[in-house]
Amino acid sequence: EDASVPPKESELRCQCISTHATIIPPSKIQDVRLMQSGPHCSNVEVIVTLKDGRQICLDPTRNWVKVIIKAILKK
Amino acid sequence: EDASVPPKESELRCQCISTHATIIPPSKIQDVRLMQSGPHCSNVEVIVTLKDGRQICLDPTRNWVKVIIKAILKK
Repeated sequence: EDASVPPKESELRCQCISTHATIIPPSKIQDVRLMQSGPHCSNVEVIVTLKDGRQICLDPTRNWVKVIIKAILKK
Repeated sequence: EDASVPPKESELRCQCISTHATIIPPSKIQDVRLMQSGPHCSNVEVIVTLKDGRQICLDPTRNWVKVIIKAILKK
């Protein structure tokens, strides 16, 4: 199973085991979800839903992830 | 019914009728969802889930919304 695909949302733990390494063009993205760190998970997590329905975890510390989020907000 | 609360996610149209005007402290936020504009809705939409479970629409063009997203990403 692809570790960068998050499990069911209801499970109260970190949802991302690993993160997707290659850049994803904003045009492929349906929505982006930023999960605040908390008791359930000490990491901030970024889960992207692609237009084809797949969900992929991204690394919030990577610059290109921040650039994508900025680009979506600017539209 | 509070217009800044989004309807069920599955409905394919804009989810935010209006947006919450006052600043929400990041500490109250569980997660932030950025919905890309598309055929279903011409606006970029920002839906915040608070730690108390409420969902609130924010205006992606407001500076404080961008600042909150940046703050969450920096943690």
